[in-house]
Formats: sequence, C-alpha cells, structure tokens
Amino acid sequence: MRNSSFGDIAHLGHVELLTSEFDKSRWFFTELLAMREVAAEGDSVFLHAWDDYERYTLKLTASPASGVGRVALRTGSQEALERRAAAIEATGRGIGWKDGEQGVGRSYAFTDPDGHPMEIYYDTEWFQAPDDAKPALKNQADKYPGRGINARRLDHVNYLGKDVEENGTFIADALGGEATEQIRLNTGQISAQWFHFNSKSYDVVYSADNTGSTGRLHHIAFATDTREDILKGADVFLENGIHIESGPHKHAIQQTFFLYVYEPGGNRIEFANAGARLMLAPDWKTIEWTEAERAKGQAWGMKTISTFHTHGTPPVGE
Amino acid sequence: MRNSSFGDIAHLGHVELLTSEFDKSRWFFTELLAMREVAAEGDSVFLHAWDDYERYTLKLTASPASGVGRVALRTGSQEALERRAAAIEATGRGIGWKDGEQGVGRSYAFTDPDGHPMEIYYDTEWFQAPDDAKPALKNQADKYPGRGINARRLDHVNYLGKDVEENGTFIADALGGEATEQIRLNTGQISAQWFHFNSKSYDVVYSADNTGSTGRLHHIAFATDTREDILKGADVFLENGIHIESGPHKHAIQQTFFLYVYEPGGNRIEFANAGARLMLAPDWKTIEWTEAERAKGQAWGMKTISTFHTHGTPPVGE
Amino acid sequence: MRNSSFGDIAHLGHVELLTSEFDKSRWFFTELLAMREVAAEGDSVFLHAWDDYERYTLKLTASPASGVGRVALRTGSQEALERRAAAIEATGRGIGWKDGEQGVGRSYAFTDPDGHPMEIYYDTEWFQAPDDAKPALKNQADKYPGRGINARRLDHVNYLGKDVEENGTFIADALGGEATEQIRLNTGQISAQWFHFNSKSYDVVYSADNTGSTGRLHHIAFATDTREDILKGADVFLENGIHIESGPHKHAIQQTFFLYVYEPGGNRIEFANAGARLMLAPDWKTIEWTEAERAKGQAWGMKTISTFHTHGTPPVGE
Amino acid sequence: MRNSSFGDIAHLGHVELLTSEFDKSRWFFTELLAMREVAAEGDSVFLHAWDDYERYTLKLTASPASGVGRVALRTGSQEALERRAAAIEATGRGIGWKDGEQGVGRSYAFTDPDGHPMEIYYDTEWFQAPDDAKPALKNQADKYPGRGINARRLDHVNYLGKDVEENGTFIADALGGEATEQIRLNTGQISAQWFHFNSKSYDVVYSADNTGSTGRLHHIAFATDTREDILKGADVFLENGIHIESGPHKHAIQQTFFLYVYEPGGNRIEFANAGARLMLAPDWKTIEWTEAERAKGQAWGMKTISTFHTHGTPPVGE
Repeated sequence: MRNSSFGDIAHLGHVELLTSEFDKSRWFFTELLAMREVAAEGDSVFLHAWDDYERYTLKLTASPASGVGRVALRTGSQEALERRAAAIEATGRGIGWKDGEQGVGRSYAFTDPDGHPMEIYYDTEWFQAPDDAKPALKNQADKYPGRGINARRLDHVNYLGKDVEENGTFIADALGGEATEQIRLNTGQISAQWFHFNSKSYDVVYSADNTGSTGRLHHIAFATDTREDILKGADVFLENGIHIESGPHKHAIQQTFFLYVYEPGGNRIEFANAGARLMLAPDWKTIEWTEAERAKGQAWGMKTISTFHTHGTPPVGE
Repeated sequence: MRNSSFGDIAHLGHVELLTSEFDKSRWFFTELLAMREVAAEGDSVFLHAWDDYERYTLKLTASPASGVGRVALRTGSQEALERRAAAIEATGRGIGWKDGEQGVGRSYAFTDPDGHPMEIYYDTEWFQAPDDAKPALKNQADKYPGRGINARRLDHVNYLGKDVEENGTFIADALGGEATEQIRLNTGQISAQWFHFNSKSYDVVYSADNTGSTGRLHHIAFATDTREDILKGADVFLENGIHIESGPHKHAIQQTFFLYVYEPGGNRIEFANAGARLMLAPDWKTIEWTEAERAKGQAWGMKTISTFHTHGTPPVGE
Repeated sequence: MRNSSFGDIAHLGHVELLTSEFDKSRWFFTELLAMREVAAEGDSVFLHAWDDYERYTLKLTASPASGVGRVALRTGSQEALERRAAAIEATGRGIGWKDGEQGVGRSYAFTDPDGHPMEIYYDTEWFQAPDDAKPALKNQADKYPGRGINARRLDHVNYLGKDVEENGTFIADALGGEATEQIRLNTGQISAQWFHFNSKSYDVVYSADNTGSTGRLHHIAFATDTREDILKGADVFLENGIHIESGPHKHAIQQTFFLYVYEPGGNRIEFANAGARLMLAPDWKTIEWTEAERAKGQAWGMKTISTFHTHGTPPVGE
Repeated sequence: MRNSSFGDIAHLGHVELLTSEFDKSRWFFTELLAMREVAAEGDSVFLHAWDDYERYTLKLTASPASGVGRVALRTGSQEALERRAAAIEATGRGIGWKDGEQGVGRSYAFTDPDGHPMEIYYDTEWFQAPDDAKPALKNQADKYPGRGINARRLDHVNYLGKDVEENGTFIADALGGEATEQIRLNTGQISAQWFHFNSKSYDVVYSADNTGSTGRLHHIAFATDTREDILKGADVFLENGIHIESGPHKHAIQQTFFLYVYEPGGNRIEFANAGARLMLAPDWKTIEWTEAERAKGQAWGMKTISTFHTHGTPPVGE
C-alpha cells in the first residue's frame, strides 16, 4: 500500500556541493558537464543543466573540505509544504523557516538523523534562457549544449549514513518517500535503501558508511539523455584528466546505466541513465537484495572496485 | 496549479487492439516486439512486454475491421477508483461496473466523448515469469528477450477524435489528466493534446480526425529501452516486410524519439523513447504550439509524411 | 577479379570546399563539427578533424559561388604516384606536376571527364597536436573534442556528373578504383556509382546531374564515430539553425547511416557511419540496383526527399 | 615504409574453435550470437555470421580440451597465395597443400613459431542465403537476425605465444602483416603485437603467454555493428548465465570498444567495435606503448581484471 504522504515531495530540487578545489570543480561542471552558471554569490556559483526547469540545481561552494552541503526537495504544493514541515517538526529534527536562494522561496530547514542539512520548499523561479540563447524547442529549458557529457538534469543524491534504517525511516515517515529497492545483510541490517517520490525510481539514497562517520556523501548524480552520452563522457573525462572510478556498466539494483568519476574536489559524481524504466505501479513492493545476491556482483555480474565501498566526502582515513 | 484529481489515475493499463489480420498481427507482436503470450481466450490473445509489471498490457482481437477496442487505465488506489467512477458517472458517460479480464479486478466502463470504449480499475494481478524462465534481475518482470525491437512496455495511446477539446476536457475533468503540450490552430481550435497522469510526459493523446469520423485510432505506442532499439527495430522491420511510415526521428513536441510502422492489421504502432525527459514540476505549464510553429516541421525541422495526417484505423476513405 | 591497379590510390586525402558564406561556413566546421583550424592563407582556412592523420583534410575557400574545388587522393607509395600520373597522362586529362599546400608534397593535377579538378600525391605532413593539447591516447591524432557532431574524419566525396559511366570508367582505369555498388536505370544507363580504393566501401561517388550541368557537387561526407553522434548532431544542427535535409536514416545502398545538412554556404554535407561494414573480399562483385529496386525507397523503404535529387552546388536553376 | 608483401593476405578467413562443451557452445553461437549453422560434419558444425561473405567463418569442434584449432587467412589473389606459400616454405614451417573444407579450395598448411596450426587459401565459396530467407538488402550476405548480440562478422584472433617477437617476425616476413600497435616492456621485450593486412586495424594478435606454454588462445573476436549491440549483449549474456569477464569498455590500445565473455567451453570471446577507426595511412608507424603507459590502465584509465592476464585455452594451471 502506498505511503499516504507519497506525492507531498515532488522531487529533488537542488544540492550544494562543497569543494576544496573550487576553480577546478567549476571548470568541471561548466566545461565537461556543459552546465550554465546562472549566478555567483560569495564563495559560491549556481549552476543549471539544460533540462532543469528551475533556475538552478547545483550550488558549488569553495570550502576547506569537500562534501555535501544543503540538499533541498521541492514539494507538490504549498499545502504539502506545510504538511511536511509539521511532520518534520514533530520528529524534533526541524530547524525552522528561512528564505531560499536565487529565486527559491520560503524553505523549511532540518537535518536527517545522520546530520545532513536538508530543506523543503515549494515556491521557485523557473529558468529563463537568455534572450540571445533561446532553445530551438519551446518545451526545453535551455539550449542543447551538445558538448562534454551533456548532463541533462540533476538526478539524485546518495548519502552515506551511519544507520541506514534510521535515516530511511525518517525519509518515509517525515517526507513520504517509498523505498523502491534495498539491500539487507545476513545480520538483518539494511545496508542501502533507495527512495522515490514520483515515477522516477529514486531521488534519495542511503548507503552504510563503513567508516562509522556521519554526514558524508557517497555521490550526487546527473541524468544523461542516452547511454551513449555516458560512453562519450568517458572519452571526454579521459581526455581531460578526470579520474574514472567505475563503469560504464549497468547496475543490477535499479538497472541504472552508470559512470562514476571524481570531480576535481574529490566528490564522486555519477552519470546515470535509467533507460525507459519507471515506477508506474502505485503498489510497488520494495525489492530486497540479500547479501548473497549482492555477492554475485552488481554490474552484469562483475565485481565492483573496492574504492566504491570506501571513498566518500569529506574523506575519512582513506 | 495542479489538477486536484491528478494522481487518481496512475497510468495507462492495457489496450485492446482489433485486427483484421489476426495471425499476422500475432506474429508481429510476439516475434518482432518479443512480447510474451500469457493467455488466449475466444478470438483474443493477451500479451506482455518484458517490463510490464501487470499480467498483460495488450489484448489482440480478431475483428472484421482493425482499430482500437477498450483502453483501461489503472487508478492509484481503491479510493481513487471510486472517486473517478463517481466523477465519470456524473458526466453521463458511465456504463457501469464489470469484472476485468485475466487478473484485472472490478472495472468501471465508460466512453469518452468520441465514443472510444474505456475503463478504469485498481485491482490487478502482477506478471509472474514462468518457473523455467525467471529473469536474472529480480527487479525485472520477465526475462530480457534481446530480439526484435525488444519492446519494453506499453507507453501510450493516441486517439483520433472529432473534437479534440471536448475529449480533452473530459480527460481533465473526469480523470484528472493534465495537458503537458497542445497544438492550437489559427482558428483557435486545439488540434492535438497530450495528457499525463504521472511523471511521464503523456499516456493519452487526442489528435483531430481530419475525416470527421469518431472512435478511431491514430496509434498505440511501446517504449523501448534505448534509441538504438528503435534504429535496430527499423532494420528488423525492413527485413520482415513491415511498412515503416516515418522515423526514426525526434518529435519537436514532447521530444520523443520515434518510429511509426503499420502492423499487419493496418494499425499504426509507434516505438517511442523519451530519453531522460520527465515531467517533474508539479506546476508544469502546458506548452502550446501554434500553427506556424508546427509548419516549421516536427522532426528536427523536417516535414512529416502526409499519411501521418490521414491514416487511422478503422480506415475511412483512404 | 580485382583491378590490377587497386591499392595504388590509398584513400581520399583532402577536399577544397568553396563557399559564398565564408564566415558562417567557417563557424559551421569549427564549432559544429569541432574541426581544428591548422592554417589560414589568402581566402582559405585549412581544417582538421580529430582522427585525420594528415595535417588537413578540408580547405575552405571564400568564393562567389559555393561548390567543390580541388579533390586530392593520396597514393600508396611514390611508385604508385608515378604509375597513376603516367596512366592519367595517357588519358589526355593530365595537367601536370605542382607543389601541394600545407605540407603536401609533389602533386599531379588533372580533371575527371566532368571537369572536376583533382590531384594525386604521396608526400604529406602528419598532423601534430599542439604541445598544450596532446591527446590522452597516443594512437589518436588530436584531442577528442566531444562537442557538436564530433566529426571523426573526412570520409568521401560525392560528385554530380553529366555522364556517370564515363567518369566511372576514368576512376577505374586511371586510378584503379573499383565500383562496390551502382544503380542501373531501365535505359541501361548507370545513374550512380560508388568507388573504393581500400577496405572502406567508398571514397568517391558519382551521381547523375539531372540538370545536365558539369563540375557540380552533390556532397562531401565526414565519418562520425557512432550512429549516436549523428542523432546528437541532429539536435545540435536544429539548435543552431542549420537546415537538415534528410536522415537520420540508413541507406539501402552501402547501408550507411546518414544525415544530410546544408552548411551555411549551401553545400550539402553528409555525416556517415558505416557501422562495422568493410569490403574485405578481394573479389567483391559490384552490387547493381535496378530502377525498380530503387523505387522501393532507399532508407528503410522510405521515400527520399525531392531536393536530394535536385540540389547541388554551384546551384543551377533550383 | 609499407611491407612490400602487404596485401598478399586479404583478411582473416575462418577459425576452428575446440570446445569441451560442444552442445552448450553450439547453443551459445547459434542462439546468443545469432550465427547460422551452414553444415555439420563429424564432430564439427560450421557457422556463419550475417555479414560474413564466405560460406563459414567459424568451425566449432567437440574436443577433450578447449582451445583454438586451425586459423585460415584468405589471400588477395591466386598469385599472392603462391607467393606466400613459397615464403612460408622457405621458413621451414610449411606443412603442405591440402583441400579446404566446405567450399574452401586449395590451402597451404603451416604452423606459426608457437605451433598454432594455420592455413592460407584463395578459392572460397560465397555464402548464399536459403531461398526462403533472402535478406531485404541485396548487399548483405544473410538476413539481419536482430537477436542476441547480433554478431556481424568474425573480426580477429588473439593468440597467446611464448615468444611474441618471434611469432610477430614470422607474421611480418612470411605473411606481409604490419604491426599497427605493440607493447614493449622495460626489459625491451615486446609483450603484445597487433597485425593488420588491410585497412582494418588488426586481424591477428599475439600476447605473451605468462604460463610459458605454447599453442594457446587468448580470444577470438566478432565485430558487432554498433557499440549498443555490445551493451545489449551484456544484458543478453547476464540473462543467459554467460560469464562476463570484462567490459564494456574502450581499450586504450586500438581504441576498440569491447566485451569479453567465456563461451561455455571456456574459450574467451570478444565482441569488438572499432567505431569509424581505420588504418588508411599507407605509411602508418607502429604505435609503441611502454610498460609505464600500460600501467596507467587500459580501459579509460581503469585497471584490467587479473584473469585477463592469466586465463587462456587450453587451461594451464589456472
């Protein structure tokens, strides 16, 4: 049975990424992902991918240590915003209302049990392409850049968390998320959980932080239009000295075609293509993978590189 | 502002296709689309594509004239089913409750203003792969066939309608659909309208029937996993003597990558790939294309073949 | 039986393209094809695609009328150059020896029976990437640009000719070319002929000029790495206001996956991908297509747009 | 300077593969590669991929131990066959003339220095599609199967060899092959060498056998039409329980996009797509990779799985 609050969160809105290599990270996102810089403010720039309908989806901020800053989710309506804010407040994790940045309106701030800073909001400014750069198709936010990996839109955030289940319960209870898939270890512990809020298969993911730390990031992901964008992206990253960690492969879990790289600040960035996979069933039953099933390998049966299970940002004793 | 009933319909469930060339049409769907036959009953077979989560999505029925039979939409819950049935009944287009076929439960039957037979339902049996043909991935309904055009799932139905606007108003009012895009002629008339019920950009479409007929079909569509499936599909159709009408191209409207063919019964079948495009915005504003904008061509600026604007099933004075 | 001079010509070397819109054409080739400008001289620039091993393959020249200038073929050796020069001289079409441009050595100039200016040469300077732009892979000429249609290398030239057969006989007799495919009309006339000089299926093509003119160009073509480059190229061209004439489709003849556009000067440019097709057989028998076979349509059975049979450069009564 | 005998060998003709799991291997090649069985004889079947122009390219033979049997190369002419036979005979490695199988004419048998059985021939029967299965395109050998990995043609053989340089010298001197790329260790030893005979970048490869054995196989490869065939092939192999060893990735050396699997008999099979890469230069200079360059990783900088450097057939102390 569907979570009765499902739909109150519409989708992942924007992410703040902290980087210790600001200039190089900025080059990475604008040149290799072909994102447009829509604003600069203090130590941050605000970035937009060509199919993002909102004004920005990535805030890139210079910081002594790389990692993830605030992650914001857009609600389905003003009423949904009030409902979710009340539900979060009831958990004791609420911080309070504030004004959003760069066209984002009233936002309710909170932290998940792992301490990651989060917000929800409804009001938002839609992206407007500059007058001298209107796209050929009026149903498209920005001009099709056709360069680099040509990132289409922000797709999801994958947190590391000390206690996956506790974080997941919060996402389900306070935000109305539903787990589409999860991994359960032989100990009974859930070691990873994928949450969705709409027909897309996931927007927020938690993976167990094997270092026992809190507040860390596994990766953020951008959707590409096609699998070929990911293959060509690998050529582009090789040519530009970006470390490719893994892929292009297709995950067993969620069947996402992927490539993982480290942006110059060390944050892992995924490029993901779900093909035509959608969660259309209103009564989807969470797919659970056992430890044994995971041991078969996750990418067409092949083993995952070890750093995938250890590297996170900020770095902890790597 | 979002339609307050949006979400009551979860998605397009299944379609009945009538064919005057039953044996050849059956070969087309099972051999060239790689659909599985899950049941046969009377003059019909019930078919399933590898990612359809329900037991069947296509009912193929021998008939003197080709065309579209009953189209059924699944609701988001039992309550949503009751709400929509009541709303339809209030329009005077309701027919009444009946039992669904092949695992589909209680269904409410009605017609749209154009006379197309439709139903809504919630209870449904999920597809179970045969014991000797379980897929390698437990998050997938059926084995990956890897042959023909490898159709992934039923995607949408595109009706021809005498009065697009009247039909569209019904879809919006009675079913909670929202128009993501539409064409408005210089006369002010809406000549085509695309409706969605979830994050997918459309499930039901109406195009003006230039013959002035009612109850006809423009096409039904299947989603393929990738654009390359569509390119390879063109090779497969050429090799097997299937008439390719148009494509592979990318529509300006909805940006769908497509191929149109006529199945042996004469019904137009589309193979569609939306890339990573999703309607995530809860406040999406209908994109309206003018007659002049349409005249620029719809596929990368190229002109559409004339039969696309005339051919429908059942045939009327072609 | 193989033409005994086959192999004396190694491949198409470079092409001069005349354009009445020099600045716009230059933008087209450098920005949308991602070619590198290696030199400028008088009214011309010299351009290089990332996998061209020679210093340049396209000379773009400002001119009152668009069309094709000199086309040069590289021989397999110095001895082969002497042999072919002698053979051409014997036909009476020889013009004489001259020095090549931009690193190309001693060249023998001549015209084909249609009057197109041509040359053969052996000595050539290999492309050297600038010191600050060395490719990541040492087996690649230049950095992988990853933008626009990402043209990989010059592929072929397709001339219009008043008398296809006469031109073809010259290519076979004087240059050792072999026709891999051809079209023969019901009248017995050959209306198009594809010639190759190595395992690639064609480097030089003649199509009948329906205007009865001489010296005109149907198109020049660039190879892309993949079919997806061509699909993405269509998006790029649409976004940048370039007229797409036809495609992306797969030709029946030669099975080339193609897209035809007009560069700003009006010259037709093809982007071509042959997949893994190669002419490996030393005793390949010319494939002949009849008028009836052609009438079935050339792109997956679909009809070709009429301009494809009329538009050429320089324009003649279009 | 080009090897003066280059061109005497036209291309790799056919390979005999020995398998200890004959029935399963036969299923692998006919069902998953979509090859056609053209003949059966004794313990062998003869197989054809849809673009192979000759009658067969793979002879599959039941055998106690898996591995590679006879590999045959087709010459460019009868005269070339005589020249090469004489050159081989002069090395003392000739065995003598015999009749080929299944339409292959007079063949000269020999062994390479490592002891692998080889042959050269010119006369050959072209593949004829059965009357009830003629392809839609007359320039194609067989119907386009559109299933499984849809192997287009036999591409190359990669031997393991005790002494790469000795074997390579033989290929160059006796057969006129040219090394397009090679790896040289810090010791000065060549550890792998890629030989070509036409515009394709390689047909025969030697890699050092780290077990010190002789006569073993690293892999044989089939060309697929597109990179997407390889991605879909990975899905097909996963679904059918075939061990995927590595890929889909793009090799640094030769830039081949690849997937390696073990067929049921344990022989490694590669699926390879070279994109539009061709060796057109008549004076190509062998690209040499140092040990340090190799250590950077071969697939977009990623490390190769260890079995790639140890597994061969017949197996030796794995």
